[in-house]
Amino acid sequence: MTTLTTTDPRTGAHSDTGIEATDAAGVAATTAAAASAFADLRSRPRAWRAGLLRALADGLEADRAALVDAALAETGLPEARLNGELSRSAFQFRLFADAVDEGGYLEAIIDHSGPTPLGPGPDVRRMLVPIGPVAVFGASNFPFAFSVIGGDTASALAAGNPVVVKAHSSHPVTSQRSFESLVRAASAYGAPEGTFGIVYGQQAGAVLVADPVITAVGFTGSLSTGKILQAIIDERETPIPFYGELSSLNPLVITPGAASARTAALGEGLFGSVTGSAGQLCTKPGIAFVPAGAEGDALVADVVTRAQDAAAQTLLNSRIHGAFDEIRERLIAEGGARSLVAPHAGADGFSLTPAVLEIAATDVTPAVAEEAFGPLVVLVRYASTGEITAALQAVPHSLTATIHSQPEEAEVRGELTDAARDLVGRIVYDGYPTGVRVSWAMNHGGPWPATNTQHTSVGVTALRRFLRPLAWQDAPADVLPAELRDGTVDVPRRVDGVLELAGA
Amino acid sequence: MTTLTTTDPRTGAHSDTGIEATDAAGVAATTAAAASAFADLRSRPRAWRAGLLRALADGLEADRAALVDAALAETGLPEARLNGELSRSAFQFRLFADAVDEGGYLEAIIDHSGPTPLGPGPDVRRMLVPIGPVAVFGASNFPFAFSVIGGDTASALAAGNPVVVKAHSSHPVTSQRSFESLVRAASAYGAPEGTFGIVYGQQAGAVLVADPVITAVGFTGSLSTGKILQAIIDERETPIPFYGELSSLNPLVITPGAASARTAALGEGLFGSVTGSAGQLCTKPGIAFVPAGAEGDALVADVVTRAQDAAAQTLLNSRIHGAFDEIRERLIAEGGARSLVAPHAGADGFSLTPAVLEIAATDVTPAVAEEAFGPLVVLVRYASTGEITAALQAVPHSLTATIHSQPEEAEVRGELTDAARDLVGRIVYDGYPTGVRVSWAMNHGGPWPATNTQHTSVGVTALRRFLRPLAWQDAPADVLPAELRDGTVDVPRRVDGVLELAGA
Repeated sequence: MTTLTTTDPRTGAHSDTGIEATDAAGVAATTAAAASAFADLRSRPRAWRAGLLRALADGLEADRAALVDAALAETGLPEARLNGELSRSAFQFRLFADAVDEGGYLEAIIDHSGPTPLGPGPDVRRMLVPIGPVAVFGASNFPFAFSVIGGDTASALAAGNPVVVKAHSSHPVTSQRSFESLVRAASAYGAPEGTFGIVYGQQAGAVLVADPVITAVGFTGSLSTGKILQAIIDERETPIPFYGELSSLNPLVITPGAASARTAALGEGLFGSVTGSAGQLCTKPGIAFVPAGAEGDALVADVVTRAQDAAAQTLLNSRIHGAFDEIRERLIAEGGARSLVAPHAGADGFSLTPAVLEIAATDVTPAVAEEAFGPLVVLVRYASTGEITAALQAVPHSLTATIHSQPEEAEVRGELTDAARDLVGRIVYDGYPTGVRVSWAMNHGGPWPATNTQHTSVGVTALRRFLRPLAWQDAPADVLPAELRDGTVDVPRRVDGVLELAGA
Repeated sequence: MTTLTTTDPRTGAHSDTGIEATDAAGVAATTAAAASAFADLRSRPRAWRAGLLRALADGLEADRAALVDAALAETGLPEARLNGELSRSAFQFRLFADAVDEGGYLEAIIDHSGPTPLGPGPDVRRMLVPIGPVAVFGASNFPFAFSVIGGDTASALAAGNPVVVKAHSSHPVTSQRSFESLVRAASAYGAPEGTFGIVYGQQAGAVLVADPVITAVGFTGSLSTGKILQAIIDERETPIPFYGELSSLNPLVITPGAASARTAALGEGLFGSVTGSAGQLCTKPGIAFVPAGAEGDALVADVVTRAQDAAAQTLLNSRIHGAFDEIRERLIAEGGARSLVAPHAGADGFSLTPAVLEIAATDVTPAVAEEAFGPLVVLVRYASTGEITAALQAVPHSLTATIHSQPEEAEVRGELTDAARDLVGRIVYDGYPTGVRVSWAMNHGGPWPATNTQHTSVGVTALRRFLRPLAWQDAPADVLPAELRDGTVDVPRRVDGVLELAGA
């Protein structure tokens, strides 16, 4: 058996975790338990599942100290950020509980039998049902919110599915403690064994994705790993959906009006968004369009000063730390960017200071539009809106685009919005794309290679990824789910084409 | 240039259509026109698009005679069936028009800014937007309802996308006339050129799926062709969703109570469902569970008599005609089924009489659970409900399952429903799976290999396949779609977690 090592990115020191890599038999036992749990979970009413989600949230908050301690030692992220992330994960479980209680996510529809222009129509009733055991891959940059206790786990479970997590190799101890917290709370609540499973090690992840019991994969990570997992799925006898959130450059545009009117505020905001969590957020603005000329120069100077004065920040692991300067050098050598502020390494561990690059909009090519995970931004200087929209064509599709403009600049705002619409999944105005709100309307997804799906991985509608429709035709009441029976029910439904609120 | 041939299945006679196979340059010109049409279509209000859908329906009905004539000569399907299918296609366009007017499909959500347990939250507004040009592959067995003027075309266009159809080689003239009808009506209505495109020939279909402009593929056809198209998609630089409806055996179960109480009615109904449209429907019950013993024997005898007395029916093309007996012989030689009624060829063209096979439930293996397109049913004799649920494990996942039971048989009905739930997308009670109702609640989809998606290809929710979410954060009203602005709107929305009806 191989045991896993963990590394403290603040010091670079390795230590043995005592956690063994899961072998193929271990993966099979875990998915078998998940399959058996599914038979139980699917038979529970919505209120039971909402209660489970709330119990998990309470359990996470009770275990906060141990979880944050583990994450501190394995990620080097600031304690305040980790505490906030844990709160966010607990909030997320509770929000999904509210959504399960509300029941709109079922998309319940009833068409009564009766005459139609094509002859007599049967009674047809449809709602969404859970798909089965889901595999979730944790991400390195969010040890809570996109890992064992993250949005994929919460949404898959809220939909009624058991979850098997592949622990991220950067935070195995955090993953184990998170898993234990979930299992403790679920078990106390009375959830079946196998509701949660966890596997460790890269090989176990590959075996998990190939396992016939698994019905979908949720993944947040690199494009290259995403492609490897998709290739494993392509080889399966039964294809399954792969929900991958893979890569994002998140272009941000500052109009001439905004650059003049809000120079210092924009410098501070942009720098904060680029360097928050050491720039290791999937929504970090990696490329920012700043006007040429004096108003842009002042803004650039502001960002440069902040970067020069910045202390070193700790990156998550040696791979990210090592890749950072490699990519930065490529952006210069192959992308044609100029270095305005070069980073330097901190005293200990995987730390470094921010990097700022600059290029003219007319020189932007895909070579300067590569995502650099870490505190780096490429400032793009433009002379016209046309230069921005042309340059955006060289930027890979992203999760977000951001537009800073003045109220009176409606025309340029409209042009930029039109240009951004096809390129991203969320357009932010006069704000920053980092700090993704967990809410009903949030969309965290975008055209390939940002994601490969038509769904979000953050927010309530993330539920839809782990559901499929089922229809009952001319069914006697005894086989119908409660939500599809005649009479007043506690979910909204569309009846004979007309949407009705719950209780109608 | 290759010109396409068409064959009259009633006689087997070939004739030249004068239609040329589309070369690569032709495909590229077609998708370029679609891309350009998309820019126009997406800017139109919903009411405009609903009007377009209705104009198309009117145009199809005006062109009914020419369309049905062409389909008669190319499919050999009965005239009444073809007239019904054309009416169904027109109805489908009008139903999608109603759905577009109603606007619930947009899934509009607004979260206002304000305090949250995680701090101040920004204003986030989300709705679904069209994905771009869609490729649609016509099916041989529905020259209207699953071809150029079928559900994939109607739903993709209703969502706001241009459509490029790959004409089915079995009915090129019907496809061409259908396309011309759409273009005529769309052009008179004022829709942009490129709203519809069509390509001819197998090679053109492959080029179409690989074209970077195409954002999704709708396909109804064989599992083998579906896998070829998926392999082309896997090679694309940008992966796109493949919505394939591929294969279905549609198990039907008759309980002992039903077999006794309704012997003749069930014999007539089952035989009608197996042989309607010469058994060439994706929802044909290909395998039917009948109790062992006297009550089942009487039902089997009824079906056998009907099959022996039946006239020959014309199949769609020589491939289906040729494969029919090949598969039937495999079901006997490899699957272990006994022939109760052997088919014989009709006098002309691609015609034959129905086939009935029988096997014991305990002998059912995947070898006897192969889909045979055409008028064939395998009757499975069972001694207990346990034998049925065990045998169902050898049957590939399907679009539908059907359960005939008596009102007092609630327990067995419940057991069969539980068994069917994971295997199919629609469960039919005391009826037949053929004759799919086009309505809001319909689900026409199922677990692999029935389909490879979590969506339906029939009914209003088929729209969701061709949409993706987009979110606007802290957006000024001038960049928001009308449906997401403050104030009263004409679509239902979820506002701060609470569902509101249109006009609220």
